[in-house]
Amino acid sequence: MADPRVLRAMSTPLLGQFDPEFTAIMGEVVELSRFAFQTANARAFPVPGTGRAGLEAAIVSLVEPGDRVVVAECGRFGLLTIEIAERCGAEVVPVRGEWGRIIEPDAIASALEGGRTKILAVVHGETSTGVLQPLEEIARLAHAHGALLVADCVVTLGGCAVAVDRWAVDVATAGTQKCLSCPSGLAPVTFNARAERVIRERRSKVRSNYLDLGQLADYWSPARFNHHTAPTSMVYGLREALRAVREEGLEARFARHRLHGDALRAGIDALGLSLFGKEPPERRLPFITPVVVPEGVDDLRVRRRLIEDFAIEIGAAFGPLQGKIWRIGTMGYSAQRQNILLCLTALESVLRGEGFRAAAGAGVDAALAHYAAAGAAGPLAVDDNLGAGGIGRL
Amino acid sequence: MADPRVLRAMSTPLLGQFDPEFTAIMGEVVELSRFAFQTANARAFPVPGTGRAGLEAAIVSLVEPGDRVVVAECGRFGLLTIEIAERCGAEVVPVRGEWGRIIEPDAIASALEGGRTKILAVVHGETSTGVLQPLEEIARLAHAHGALLVADCVVTLGGCAVAVDRWAVDVATAGTQKCLSCPSGLAPVTFNARAERVIRERRSKVRSNYLDLGQLADYWSPARFNHHTAPTSMVYGLREALRAVREEGLEARFARHRLHGDALRAGIDALGLSLFGKEPPERRLPFITPVVVPEGVDDLRVRRRLIEDFAIEIGAAFGPLQGKIWRIGTMGYSAQRQNILLCLTALESVLRGEGFRAAAGAGVDAALAHYAAAGAAGPLAVDDNLGAGGIGRL
Repeated sequence: MADPRVLRAMSTPLLGQFDPEFTAIMGEVVELSRFAFQTANARAFPVPGTGRAGLEAAIVSLVEPGDRVVVAECGRFGLLTIEIAERCGAEVVPVRGEWGRIIEPDAIASALEGGRTKILAVVHGETSTGVLQPLEEIARLAHAHGALLVADCVVTLGGCAVAVDRWAVDVATAGTQKCLSCPSGLAPVTFNARAERVIRERRSKVRSNYLDLGQLADYWSPARFNHHTAPTSMVYGLREALRAVREEGLEARFARHRLHGDALRAGIDALGLSLFGKEPPERRLPFITPVVVPEGVDDLRVRRRLIEDFAIEIGAAFGPLQGKIWRIGTMGYSAQRQNILLCLTALESVLRGEGFRAAAGAGVDAALAHYAAAGAAGPLAVDDNLGAGGIGRL
Repeated sequence: MADPRVLRAMSTPLLGQFDPEFTAIMGEVVELSRFAFQTANARAFPVPGTGRAGLEAAIVSLVEPGDRVVVAECGRFGLLTIEIAERCGAEVVPVRGEWGRIIEPDAIASALEGGRTKILAVVHGETSTGVLQPLEEIARLAHAHGALLVADCVVTLGGCAVAVDRWAVDVATAGTQKCLSCPSGLAPVTFNARAERVIRERRSKVRSNYLDLGQLADYWSPARFNHHTAPTSMVYGLREALRAVREEGLEARFARHRLHGDALRAGIDALGLSLFGKEPPERRLPFITPVVVPEGVDDLRVRRRLIEDFAIEIGAAFGPLQGKIWRIGTMGYSAQRQNILLCLTALESVLRGEGFRAAAGAGVDAALAHYAAAGAAGPLAVDDNLGAGGIGRL
């Protein structure tokens, strides 16, 4: 779900892109993006496209034909990174891992030792499996080998720590439609001076005009370099989404994502379902819960009944996991107690129709017990869990 | 201005991108895009970026490194096309013309004769100068030389005829924020079977994942190939904008753009100002009026007073025309009588402050006389000029 305040902001009448009122909004978006990325980087702004546009902009702007790019892959978005880097003309060295596990730093170190590497690209949160790749050690490895670290933070920004400066991530790219609860359509990115130097000192022109990070940075700076026509309404929406992040506060927001994800997982466990993946909780995304489809239960039929009867959309799986797991997202505005409880009751009901039996009400009871133990029980407030600016229910 | 009904549509809650309700909306957008482009092409859908993303998608998806691309250039957007094609690895042959004139077919024919050409790229409406390039003869030339015609119709779609099938345009790309009165952020495109064959039979991979027209076409077809996450709110907005086009009807919409543009030009003339450009009316955009900045008048100060005091934004000029002309747009929802009259009174007032004198009220009187002669006088209706679904004033 998008945050209703974001949707309302998107229906504001348009300003011209060089109107001082609009450039002031752009300045605010830059400032708020720095806050979300936990960075003091000069460059923090949205690329005018969806999440993968941000990732492609980073790679196409850094890579020159033949550059060596090491990509850590343990899921669908790692595969996408490989494909993008290949299309950008890089010599790609994949480091493949099991889907459902992180990529171990040792495997990455070996790949970096194999040759002079321009970029190490890693997916921070692998949405397809639910794993969270720790970045700090990976950044140290990249730098020890003279490479830049590009991290795909599409799913993590605004939901768990993306500590760009503290971890020394050179380029971080994100999306709007996950934990920011803004519609898809912009890709916030940030990069440090080291990455900017590489972009500015290229020998060849960037192979794209639309996704040229140097030109985009000049448009999003006081230079106001004339590039694309700003997608005004999306910029309004992103500003509002980032304001909601700042008002709630990063720590409170991360804790909220953790709380509701844990409550959901307590309920899933009580229903007799199993989580997918072998990593410990600190290496799992708090807000994506991958659930093993039980024996004899039809994946598609369950998802169809959930959406048709309950208007609850859960994620299908990709590639080798297709039909084997569901992925339940509890991100941004959706991370609210009533949604967790509704999801568990709906799942129990739909699974019963599939012949999978759980003790009636077991899921909800376990989730409620988790809330009580966490001191988060009691009546729902209007702005429950949503910070000063939030609206709990419309 | 965006159409208020489009802005309202954009604040609708989100649907999942594979939700049948959303795929039905996608189907409607395809059907409405065909209507706007006057085509029966199987492929008609929006690229997820602003206007130049659509143009880059067309070129990067058609061109393989070293392909010969002839680009007609008589303004800023011709220059952009050259830059995009170069970055895509094409061997670019520019056909340069005077800014303010169209490119003559003979010049294009000579360039096509110079070598085996993959693509001829032409800007249909050159926003920077106000000229409208006739496309039908150009398409014949392209085909006679075995080339595909790619036309940049960013400014023309929805404002004057873009008769893709009748003129045999192989690929047309557009934008949302001009005559469609939808915020910037999507690029409607259409291409015919001939262009699709070229895309599908490439020897090399498209150099972009994000802008790969083949993959995008598969996402926007019943195949529902999983590509980017749909920018849902923008798709809602585009659907509403295209519905408004269909409700008004193409001929009525083109006549409305012509009527208000002509009324503005009658007023401009009566104020003693001169239009820029030497082409006859049929080779000028009806909805962009380029005005010569009079001797002794400060371009920037006039634009600043117009926006600060009257909230009217008129366009600055680019490159060799900078400081020499203004460009007044009367596109889409903005093409309404009250806007024309307000613009003329504001311009008269601001120019008086610059020491440029015109007979008081001369501009408005001339515009009103034009409306009367055209049978378009009388009180403003609530949905004046805006078709069945429009709302004249809020």
